[in-house]
Amino acid sequence: MTVDSVEFTQRLSERAIEVEAALEQILDPTPQADEIARPAHLLAAMRHGVLNGGKRLRPFLVLETAALAGADPQAALRVAAALECVHCYSLIHDDLPAMDNDDLRRGMPTVHVAFDDATAILAGDTLLTLAFEIITAPQTPTDDANKAALVLALARAAGIGGMAGGQALDLEAEKTTPNEAGIITLQAMKTGALIRFACEAGAILGNASKQDHEILIRFGEAIGLAFQLADDLLDVTSDSEHMGKATGKDAEQGKATLVGLHGQDWARRQLAGLVDEATGLLDRFGDRAQTLCAAARFIADRDR
Amino acid sequence: MTVDSVEFTQRLSERAIEVEAALEQILDPTPQADEIARPAHLLAAMRHGVLNGGKRLRPFLVLETAALAGADPQAALRVAAALECVHCYSLIHDDLPAMDNDDLRRGMPTVHVAFDDATAILAGDTLLTLAFEIITAPQTPTDDANKAALVLALARAAGIGGMAGGQALDLEAEKTTPNEAGIITLQAMKTGALIRFACEAGAILGNASKQDHEILIRFGEAIGLAFQLADDLLDVTSDSEHMGKATGKDAEQGKATLVGLHGQDWARRQLAGLVDEATGLLDRFGDRAQTLCAAARFIADRDR
Repeated sequence: MTVDSVEFTQRLSERAIEVEAALEQILDPTPQADEIARPAHLLAAMRHGVLNGGKRLRPFLVLETAALAGADPQAALRVAAALECVHCYSLIHDDLPAMDNDDLRRGMPTVHVAFDDATAILAGDTLLTLAFEIITAPQTPTDDANKAALVLALARAAGIGGMAGGQALDLEAEKTTPNEAGIITLQAMKTGALIRFACEAGAILGNASKQDHEILIRFGEAIGLAFQLADDLLDVTSDSEHMGKATGKDAEQGKATLVGLHGQDWARRQLAGLVDEATGLLDRFGDRAQTLCAAARFIADRDR
Repeated sequence: MTVDSVEFTQRLSERAIEVEAALEQILDPTPQADEIARPAHLLAAMRHGVLNGGKRLRPFLVLETAALAGADPQAALRVAAALECVHCYSLIHDDLPAMDNDDLRRGMPTVHVAFDDATAILAGDTLLTLAFEIITAPQTPTDDANKAALVLALARAAGIGGMAGGQALDLEAEKTTPNEAGIITLQAMKTGALIRFACEAGAILGNASKQDHEILIRFGEAIGLAFQLADDLLDVTSDSEHMGKATGKDAEQGKATLVGLHGQDWARRQLAGLVDEATGLLDRFGDRAQTLCAAARFIADRDR
C-alpha cells in the first residue's frame, strides 16, 4: 500500500487545519486570566505572521513522526504549533528591510509592511519566546524529561548553530560566494535544522528506541536536503504569481545554489536519490510509514 | 549583622566576575565538537552584546536567591548566564534604529553600530535562543522538572506578557501617553518581569517550599518596582557621561514616568517604602538574607 499524492495532499491539508486551530487557540486575542497584559497591536502582528494559511509542513512532520512513534497526539499538536511559531518568527525577521527586504509573503504584505519594523522585530521575538512556553506549559501532555529534551533540541536547531546561523551565512553569501561545501553547510543550518528537529520531535515525544530516534533524525536530514534543492529549483522554474512571493531572486542577487552550480538535471537526479534514501530509512516501519514516505516524495516534487 | 554598601558592591563585582567567566565559556569562539558551524561574525556580535562589563544585577539575584534556597551553585550560575543572555538580547534589539535608536551603551557602540542592523537582529535572536539551550543543556546540574519550570517561567517573563510586550507598550507610550496604571503595567512588564524571574529562578533551583517560593517572587516584584523608579530618577538627575548611555531621553521624548507624574520627592519616599517591603519579606530567613537586603538598598540608592 502506498499513499498517492492526492491522498497525501488531502492529509496534509487536514493536518494544517488541526495546526491552524491550535495556533488560533494559542494566539487567542481574548484576554487570558493569568496575564498582566498582552499589547493588542503586537498580538495582531504575531497573528498576521502566523495565521496566514501556510502549508504547515514542519508541523505535519512532527505530527506524523509522533504518530509513527506512538506519541500522545495532543502533545504532538502543541509541539507542532511551537515549531511553526519558530518558523514564522524566522520569516518575519528574514523579511525585514535590514535582511532580505521582502514585501510579500504568501501573497500578503509581510509583517513589517502591514505593521512597522519595530513591531515586526518584537513579533518575531515574542513568537520565538512563545515556542518555548508552549512546549513547557502544563497544557502539553508529555513528561518533564521530554519537555527539556524538546527545548534543547529546538534551541540548538534554531540558534547560531542552526537556522539563525544559517541566515547569517546566507547574508554573507550575497557578498562572498561560498563554495559547494559552504552552500551545503548554509542550507543544512538555515533550512535543514528545523526540518530535522520536526522529525526528531516525534521520536522524543514517542520515547522512541535509540535506533528509531536515529533513523527519524536521518530521515529528517534527507528530506531537509531535498526540501532545499526543490526550493532552489522552484526559484529558477516558477514565477512570482504562482509562488505568492518574490522568485528568481537567487540568480538576480548572484546567490550561489547547488542548482546554479550543477544544473537542473543534476538537481532532479539528486532529489530522486534523496527520496530513495529517505523512504528506504523507513522500511523498518512498514506500511505505518507510508504517509511519511509520501511526504518525502511531495517535498521533492514541489517543482513539477 | 547587616551587609553595608561597600561589602555589597564588593560581592556584586565578585559575582559579576563569575558570571562573566561563565558567559565567556558559553560564547567561546573556538569551534565546538558537536556543531555544524557557528558563523564567526555573528558570534562576535553576540560577544559584543554580552561581554561588555555590565553590573550583572539580574544574574546576581539568581545566584543569591539560589544560595538562600540551597540550590546547586553551578546550576545557578548557568541559569544566571542564561538570564543575562535574555537581558542582553533585549538591549540589542531595543537599541536598533527601528526601536529606540541608541548608538551608545555602557560607553561603547551598540551592536548595530559596531556591526550592522541585520547582524544585530540575528545576534539578539540567537542570544534569546541560547538562553533556553543553556538551561536545558546537560551541563546545567538540575533535574528535568526544574529545567522545564525555568524555561516556562523565563519564556513568560520575556514574552508578550512580559519584557517584549513591555517594550511594545513603551514604543506606543511615545505616541499615546499612558495614565498611571498604564505606566505601572508597562514597567512591570518591561523591567519587572525579568527581575521577578531572577528571584523565582533561585526558588525553583533550590526546590523552595511553596511559601518561600511566593516570598521570593514578591521580593522580586518589590525590587523590580524599585529598580524602575530609581532608573527614572537617574534619567532626570544624571548626565550621559556618568551613565555611559543617553540620558534625559524620557522628558525629551515626552515619555510618561511616575517620577514625571509625582515628582522626585514622592519617588524617593516610594523607593524607601519598597526597600522596607522587600527587606521585611526576607525577615523569615534571618541573617542569611542580608546580602539580598543589601541588594534591595543598592537598587534603590543607585541615584545618589
